[in-house]
Amino acid sequence: MAESSPLSRALDEVRSEIDSFLGGLLAVPPDPRARLYEAMRYAAIGGGKRLRPLLVVASSALFHTARDRALRVGAAVECIHVYSLIHDDLPAMDDDDLRRGKPTLHKAYGEATAILAGDALHALAFEILADDSTHEDPFVRAQLIGELARAAGPSGMAGGQMMDLAAAEQALDLAAVTRLQQLKTGALIGFCLEAGAIMGKSPPERRIGLRGYARDVGLAFQIADDLLDEVGQEVKTGKKVGKDRDKGKATFVTLLGRDRARQQAELLVGQAIDHLKSYGAEADLLRSIARFAVERDH
Amino acid sequence: MAESSPLSRALDEVRSEIDSFLGGLLAVPPDPRARLYEAMRYAAIGGGKRLRPLLVVASSALFHTARDRALRVGAAVECIHVYSLIHDDLPAMDDDDLRRGKPTLHKAYGEATAILAGDALHALAFEILADDSTHEDPFVRAQLIGELARAAGPSGMAGGQMMDLAAAEQALDLAAVTRLQQLKTGALIGFCLEAGAIMGKSPPERRIGLRGYARDVGLAFQIADDLLDEVGQEVKTGKKVGKDRDKGKATFVTLLGRDRARQQAELLVGQAIDHLKSYGAEADLLRSIARFAVERDH
Repeated sequence: MAESSPLSRALDEVRSEIDSFLGGLLAVPPDPRARLYEAMRYAAIGGGKRLRPLLVVASSALFHTARDRALRVGAAVECIHVYSLIHDDLPAMDDDDLRRGKPTLHKAYGEATAILAGDALHALAFEILADDSTHEDPFVRAQLIGELARAAGPSGMAGGQMMDLAAAEQALDLAAVTRLQQLKTGALIGFCLEAGAIMGKSPPERRIGLRGYARDVGLAFQIADDLLDEVGQEVKTGKKVGKDRDKGKATFVTLLGRDRARQQAELLVGQAIDHLKSYGAEADLLRSIARFAVERDH
Repeated sequence: MAESSPLSRALDEVRSEIDSFLGGLLAVPPDPRARLYEAMRYAAIGGGKRLRPLLVVASSALFHTARDRALRVGAAVECIHVYSLIHDDLPAMDDDDLRRGKPTLHKAYGEATAILAGDALHALAFEILADDSTHEDPFVRAQLIGELARAAGPSGMAGGQMMDLAAAEQALDLAAVTRLQQLKTGALIGFCLEAGAIMGKSPPERRIGLRGYARDVGLAFQIADDLLDEVGQEVKTGKKVGKDRDKGKATFVTLLGRDRARQQAELLVGQAIDHLKSYGAEADLLRSIARFAVERDH
């Protein structure tokens, strides 16, 4: 991706908007809670690709939702995503030392504060969505909250993480790894695309293409992540590479091999873009994001 | 409290209703997420006083809200309460082995599953509230969610827990301990009382008494907890006693001494009941709960 491509500009813009929104929300209070807010800021501000907020912005654009609303929803999703990274990195979970190019939160602030900062970001996500600046129609707000809670909870992300923990003790096949990833990362990505349709009160038939896109792009992203874990550079990914191989974990790459995994990711990207054929030029950003899924080096 | 008092019957009834509601919601799926659901059930079903759900039921009764709705909100609060107990008990936090009379969740299921089960219950709370069976008016649902998220997050419970962690490193005075407890346990209790008013769409002036009640009962409960930690029996409280003293933590009892702490709790209960004087016999359950706060042995 060239540095000045429309996608890289869109990512830069969303990154700075999300940072500024969360920065305002997480002003450090002059009391003993300061450390909690500092930890939340450390984990949530100034890092990450902000891919999920960009997906919300891009899907909202299809349904003509105001950008500041899409950004609030994007910030809420990012709070959920960041809390899950904090908890997944804990010693009892994946025990990671490096995240987004700096020490993981528990390395920098200790485990207790890290657990708590994750919990606080989790609650904050729903506080953001419930506020009436997110959408003037409370039905839309309640729907966003219900969908995000489902995507994050035991039938979504948390369920997928449980499958991931269980995977350490058994050999998963391709169907099981696909299902695991659909819950662990796919559910939240699915929410990002659905969010635009919910805010735009779009009829069900206008959502079918987006759901197909979300499913295929989510898997393509995961396969690309697995490839980066095999062949990526720590300096670019900002996290330790080779972890899955070291742990003997089944991934798309260990199951398919690098070449077939890469082909599969490209196939999924093509499919994802096909799902957008009923949308016009306003879906170009989503098309670029799909291509970025497999072309990125971080 | 006599075994057959109206309060003990009300508590028994709510206990069985919450158990049955959560039992239905947490049916164990036939896939690798089973362990997560089993852990959630272990922590959330069949234990605890269910005081918070009872408070929601009692406040809802003042505003003539249907009981099944109050129970859904009570179950959501209990999910938040249980997740906070699970995370607070972790080795990196309070490192407790016993809770509600049985091994803490991380002792029974391991730390990773315990962290995850807490997270999953956290998300589930908001999923329950967002569903339209909780209230037909989405504005009410969004308001309940916003208030619960605020009560649970960095400006409520999570903020209070941060102050509690910080308290290990400094000597707190009475004002600081009061503020800490108002966030750590008071915010969620405040939500329980407010929830009835939100569901009943009551005007602001009808809420003032309830807020005073919530503030005073919340503190009285905490003082009673501190007294139980000093003089209670493990077999009745279902958790280790003498913890705070062993850790040299400032509590209402270490700061005031047992006698003055007990007097203070009784004073607060009297005040709490005074706050209810504009309500009639329909507030009797709230009055009994206030007295129970200081009379209980568990």
